[in-house]
Order: sequence, then structure tokens, then C-alpha cells
Amino acid sequence: MFFVSNWLAGPFQNSPVPEVFPLLAQAAEVSEETAQTGPVILAGVLLSLVVIYLASKLVGELCARINLPPVLGELIGGVIVGVSALNLLVFPESSSHGGTDAFVIQFLESTAGLSPAAAPGVAEAIGEIISVLSEIGVIILLFEIGLESDLKELIRVGPQAAIVAVVGVAVPFAAGTAGLIGLFGVPTIPAIFAGAALTATSIGITAKVLAEIQQLSSKEGQIIIGAAVLDDILGIIVLAVVASLAKTGEIQISNIIYLIVGAAVFLIGSILLGRFLSPFFVALVDRMQTRGQLLISSLIFAFVLAYIGAVIQLEAILGAFAAGLVLAETEKQKELEEQVLPIADMLVPIFFVVVGAKTDVSVLNPLDPANREGLIMAAFLVVVAIIGKTVTGLMVFGQPGINRLAIGIGMVPRGEVGLVFAGVGSSLEILSKPLEAAIIVMVILTTFLAPPFLRLVFKEPETAEPIQNPSEGA
Amino acid sequence: MFFVSNWLAGPFQNSPVPEVFPLLAQAAEVSEETAQTGPVILAGVLLSLVVIYLASKLVGELCARINLPPVLGELIGGVIVGVSALNLLVFPESSSHGGTDAFVIQFLESTAGLSPAAAPGVAEAIGEIISVLSEIGVIILLFEIGLESDLKELIRVGPQAAIVAVVGVAVPFAAGTAGLIGLFGVPTIPAIFAGAALTATSIGITAKVLAEIQQLSSKEGQIIIGAAVLDDILGIIVLAVVASLAKTGEIQISNIIYLIVGAAVFLIGSILLGRFLSPFFVALVDRMQTRGQLLISSLIFAFVLAYIGAVIQLEAILGAFAAGLVLAETEKQKELEEQVLPIADMLVPIFFVVVGAKTDVSVLNPLDPANREGLIMAAFLVVVAIIGKTVTGLMVFGQPGINRLAIGIGMVPRGEVGLVFAGVGSSLEILSKPLEAAIIVMVILTTFLAPPFLRLVFKEPETAEPIQNPSEGA
Repeated sequence: MFFVSNWLAGPFQNSPVPEVFPLLAQAAEVSEETAQTGPVILAGVLLSLVVIYLASKLVGELCARINLPPVLGELIGGVIVGVSALNLLVFPESSSHGGTDAFVIQFLESTAGLSPAAAPGVAEAIGEIISVLSEIGVIILLFEIGLESDLKELIRVGPQAAIVAVVGVAVPFAAGTAGLIGLFGVPTIPAIFAGAALTATSIGITAKVLAEIQQLSSKEGQIIIGAAVLDDILGIIVLAVVASLAKTGEIQISNIIYLIVGAAVFLIGSILLGRFLSPFFVALVDRMQTRGQLLISSLIFAFVLAYIGAVIQLEAILGAFAAGLVLAETEKQKELEEQVLPIADMLVPIFFVVVGAKTDVSVLNPLDPANREGLIMAAFLVVVAIIGKTVTGLMVFGQPGINRLAIGIGMVPRGEVGLVFAGVGSSLEILSKPLEAAIIVMVILTTFLAPPFLRLVFKEPETAEPIQNPSEGA
Repeated sequence: MFFVSNWLAGPFQNSPVPEVFPLLAQAAEVSEETAQTGPVILAGVLLSLVVIYLASKLVGELCARINLPPVLGELIGGVIVGVSALNLLVFPESSSHGGTDAFVIQFLESTAGLSPAAAPGVAEAIGEIISVLSEIGVIILLFEIGLESDLKELIRVGPQAAIVAVVGVAVPFAAGTAGLIGLFGVPTIPAIFAGAALTATSIGITAKVLAEIQQLSSKEGQIIIGAAVLDDILGIIVLAVVASLAKTGEIQISNIIYLIVGAAVFLIGSILLGRFLSPFFVALVDRMQTRGQLLISSLIFAFVLAYIGAVIQLEAILGAFAAGLVLAETEKQKELEEQVLPIADMLVPIFFVVVGAKTDVSVLNPLDPANREGLIMAAFLVVVAIIGKTVTGLMVFGQPGINRLAIGIGMVPRGEVGLVFAGVGSSLEILSKPLEAAIIVMVILTTFLAPPFLRLVFKEPETAEPIQNPSEGA
């Protein structure tokens, strides 16, 4: 790459011809239409993907070697290439200079003939595209997780999952809000918002870690996933309610009821309807003759449910998860799982690197006095976030010998959902700068700490039965 | 889907609560930041993908049943859902109302709470994302084709491919330009531009059809692909030169030399460098421990070459093709091919549907008197386009018994490359309305006619040797 880059640099730097690249120069001059910046945007997206894949694999391989989950490596790789450190990528949220100071844009300016005047528009487009690709990545991830889940087992752990979810939402919310008001004198509405940001578990990170340590189908794993799914629904409801409260000053009961009922009807309804329709689906796929018939039919199903999940104010990932659950019950499960695997390999790292890259860890820097207040509140929020979720394991009933600590730890990471709270709070201008920073720190630490702890607590029974997983730790 | 839609419609139409969806309503009011329209953009992309996949599979399956190539079905499916007929999708080029009259945007307004004020911005973002996804689709397609190609065979057919490519560029260019000036009195510069639009073969469509009829690795198939690759390079050079001519009124020799030398150095250089480096690549991949190591490493390689191809003013697809050729020589070829297959199944249909959907076939309507002039010129261009490429088969030397007609027909489809010409000519405002329409009609007809003809001419020897491909025609 460097060899070719040097070779490329030649004509740009030394050429006596003023317009080496007539087409791009014309594009900037003749018209400002998007169609004309199209090739530069595509080049920028390709460059961003190369950066993302390099970050994900370099740090992911490093983590695999020191026995940390590769997904943590992808997050750290994201932080390294992101806004906190190298600033290689652009996002829709890029604040400073509209993202034009990012490496990707600078590199496009020096190699692809991008003009500084066109740079902000191109940066915005690239950021938007990478953002949507990362969201398609998490949709595919949840689809894959659904496909690998056992619905019967999930229903069997339903009551346990429900109690874990409800406690895991209520305890951090109450303790966080009360503590912020009582200990730090934060006004009521910001305190409630920050408390709400403590509620939602990141199903993506936990599920990936569980899959990596082969605990996804264990009873603990199924309770964690079930609770995280319910938690996600509860978290979105809390977010909608709190945002509504912050804006109007009153909680709309009809809206809360609509959201709760909608979520329940959506998830149960799509699973029941899917079970009813899946024999027809299999028969249809069997009669199709063109390439990719199973994959495309399944993606249509997953994307329709994801779309419905998104527009009824729940989450797109919830719909994709439901679609995976339904298709896991069909005879095509094995074949489909094999086909989804490479697609997940391609798209899921984009999501984890982007989550890491968007997070500004410079608010962690204790040397800057402006960060002090945020750091103390962050410490409080982190403690509440970890304890508030860890206690949920104690609430599991009727399961003697179950690893309660593992369930509690599995609920700790907040990840993308916590970042959604921070983003909405920021745009609503509810949160003070230190409180916003504290929420971000809480999200980072719970997300970064949970995976190694999760591996640790799941390792314990293994030392007792070393025959079960002899390849583990290689 | 319809059942759920009706169920969804309830709360929107009947609810006495003014704000059923507080978050989205807030998003529109509080801030116009992209981050806030993010969920609607994601929903719109999912909806667009569902439309694209449905169109590709419904018409593709129909075509497979009447013995037409499924890729033609994807194109026709695209035309049906595109600007010509149902107008379901949005593109960066959407002219009327900024694409807000498209079904996807209307549907988002009625189901996802998209406000009419935010609609143009959301439509632009969705169009841009779908456009980039389709371009990533064609990059993956060319990567897959490279991976399935035999480099040794391609080099062996090099001289034949070169002569086919050069004749296939020169004859249509000369005949088209001369005819437009002599027969229709078109001014010189527009005539040269239209003549240039006749030059570049669409490698994507031809290669897909060849793969479908299992002729990709035949001698004819390899000559066609080799010639189409060279043709693509020549076509881009012609486009750059003609666009430069149209703008400045003079052809820059240094620029032409730079483009020609750059293309040759890029393709040969990346193949030689790749051959040298591929043992290290295989050794590196073998030492990696995380999931997707082969796929991600290969995609990094392909995207880097695609990026270089794009920024040196050639084509991104050329770089992806070169990467595929290099990796096809390694021992990982089989494993990688299997992993790329589902990714191609997911992304390639987006490209073909989008090409069809962007094409406005209403300029074909002979009932509208405004289309008459364009139709006559179109008829002329179509004849020149078909004959000018078909004669190339006659130039193949030293290959007794080769199917010359098949090679000529294989070079006929213009597809996306022709549409790039029409787009650039349109934005430079060189072309008259009828001439622009004539170019589009030429592109449509050559693209739509070539696949069935190609199947037809490749069928001929089969009836003579029915043992070779007994499964064909099933």
C-alpha cells in the first residue's frame, strides 16, 4: 500500500499539468450535485472500511492473544482510530470542523482530488453511510444471535429473565436518580435522565462475548439474553418516557401504555405469526430457482421485522432478533446460519469499531480540572451501574446451582444503548457538560469491564470440570 | 406484512394523543442534526432493501422460468420499481421534488413519523446510501469474478482480448460520431461525446450471464472478460478525454498519457505485487485466531485496490477485480470463494436493481411526439452499438473453431458504464435532450438484448455436443 501510495503521489506533486484529474475538478466546478461527488464518497467509504477492518483485526488479534474477547479488541481498536486518539473516521456527530479534519477526509483531499469546499458535504455523506452500515451490522448480529438461539429454552427461562430485567432496570434507575439528587444536588429532570441512562443492557456486546466463550446456549446465557432483550424494550420505553417528560414536563400515560403494549404485541405477535407462516416460507424457498433464494428471502423477512421494530418506536435490532428466532425453528436453520456467518463477519465489526470510535474518552483525562466534577459523578454512576445490575442475579429463583454472579455480570455492559441516551440527552440540552461526560464514562467502563469479568466468572466452573472445554484458553 | 401494517396504522390514525411518537417529533423540532434523523434514515434504507430484494427475486424467478438470465430479471425488476413505473425508490439523481414523491419516502411519512420538512434531507441520505451499497455490490461482484477467473488463461487470451477491446472501442466510436454529424447534423462536441458513450462494454452484466450459463471459464468467456476489462479502462480514458475536450475545447496529451500509463501500471503492477506478496498473506491469515480472518483480510486487500483504482481516475471495480485475480492464485481460493458467495448474493442484486431503477424508460414512449427525434437517433445508435461490437469477434486470430459471434455479442451490453457517460454528459450540459434520451435508449436496449442473445449463441454448439452440459436448459 505504501509503495503504491508513493507511486501515486508522483503525478500530484510534480505534474506540470494543472488539471491531472479533469473529471473530479469538473465535478467540483460544474455542479454541486451529489451525483458528482459520488465517486469521492465511494472512495471515502472504502477507505473508512479499510481503517475499520484494520483496527478490528489488529487489536482483536492482540486481545485474542492475551485472552480478552476479540469484541473488546474491536471496541478498543475503534477508540484508537476514533475521535479520542487518531481521529481517522467521520461520523454524523463529528462536531469539530464538520469532520473535515479526520484522516479519511484529509487523505481524500490529498489523493482523490477532493476540494476543501466540497469536503464538509462529502464528510457528512461518508459519516452517514458508515453509521448506517454499522447499524445494518448490529441488525445482522441480532439476526444471527436469534438464529443461534433456542426459542423453547428462551421461553422456559422467561420468568427468570423477566425478573432479572425488571430488577436490572428498577435498581440502577432508582439508585442513580436518588444519588444524583441527594449527593450531587443535580436538578430533578437531569437526574431522572441520567438514572434512565443506567437502565439498558447492551445485548450486542454481552451476546458476542457469550458466543465467544461458548456460553450462549447455557442456562445462564439464555437468561442473560432473554433479560437483555426485555431490558432493551424496557430501556427504550424509559428513554421515550423520560425524553417526553424532559420536554413537556409531564409523563403521558397513554404513550407509556402504547409503548408497553406495542412492544409485547410486536415480539409475541411476530413470533406466533412467524411460526404459523414458516412452513409456507420453507415451501416457497424450496420452489425458487435463482441464486441466494434462502438468504434473500430470509433477509426480506428480517428487514421487514426490523423496519416495523424501528417505526413502532422500539428498536430495529429487536425485529431482526425476532426474525432470527422464527427462522431458527425451521429446517433451513443450519443452511441459513452458514450463509449468514460471512455476512456477519463482514458487517458486525463495523458496528463495534464505530461504537468505540464515536466515544470520546478524553473526558476521562483526570489531569484536566474541567473533568473533575464529571469524574466523581462518573465514579458514582459506574458503581451504581455495576452493583445495580450485579444484584439482579440474586433474584433468579427455582434454579439451584445456577451461576448467579455470571448472570449479574452479563447484564452490566451498557454499550450502544447507553450512548443513545447520552446522544438524545445532549441534543435535548437537558444534561450539564459534566453529567453528560459522566454518563459517557459509565457507558465506556461498564462496556469495557464486563467482557473480561464475564469470561472470568464463566471460567470458574471450568476449572472444576476441565474435560468439558479442553481447547479453551489456547 | 399487510396484516401488521394495518395493525400499525391504528394508533396513528385514531389516537387522541397528539404525539404518539414523542422521540421522532422531538427530533424534528429540537434539532435538524443528522443524528436525529438517523433512525428514520435507517428505516428508509431497510425499506429500500426490502423493495430491491422483492423486485430482484420476483422478476428474477419469472425470468428463470422463461429461460432468461435472472440478472435480466433483476434489471427489469429495477425498471418496474424505479423512476419509469412505480417510483418506489430514491436516488441521488432523483430530480422531481428531490425524490420525496417516491413510495419509500411517502411510506416513511405515513408510518415512521417523518415530517415533510425533513423529507428532502432524508431522501437525499437514503438515495446516497443505496447508491453506495449498489457500488459496493458491483465491487463485490468484480471481486468474485476475479476470484473465479483463471489468470493464466486470461494472460493466454491477452492478445485476442486486446484486439477485441481496441476494435470494440474504435469502430462504434468512429461510426457513431461520424453518423451523428453526417446524418443528423449534430455539432462536433456532442457527437464525439455520444460516440464515446458507445465504447465501454458492461463487464458486470456480461460476466453474470456468462457465469449463469457456465461459460465464464470457456475460451470465449475469458476473451470477453479480458476484452471487457481492457474496454473498461479504454472507456474511462475516452470519457476523461472527451469530458476534458468538452470543457476546455482541447485534448490534453499529457493527461491522456497519464491515464493510459496509470491504468497499465495499476493492473499489471497490482497483479505482480500481489503474486509476490500472496505467500505472506496466506501465512498471516493462517496465524490469525479471530473469526472471519480470511474474509476480512481479503476485503482489506480488495478495498485498498478498489480505493486506488478509484482515486487514480480508473474504476474501483478494476481494483476489486485485480484483487480477486491475485487471491484466486492462492491456496485459499476455494475457502474464500465460499465465503464471498453469500455476501455477493446479498449485495450484487442491489446493483442490478438500482441500475434498472435509475433508468427512465419513459423516453422510449413513441406516442409522445417529443420523443420522435430521440427515437430515430436511438435506433441509429443501437444499430451502431450492436454491429460495432459484434464485428469484434471477426478480429480474433489464431483460434480456429472459436465462437466468434458469441464473443461479439458478449461485448454488446453497455449497462452502467454507458449510464455514467449519460450522467456526466447531462451534468456538463453538452447533450441535447433528444441526444441524451437516445444514449439512454441505446444503453437500455444493448443491456437488455445482449443476455438472451448471449444465451442463444452459446447454446448453438451445445446441440452439437449435448453430452458436455446435460444439465443446461433445465
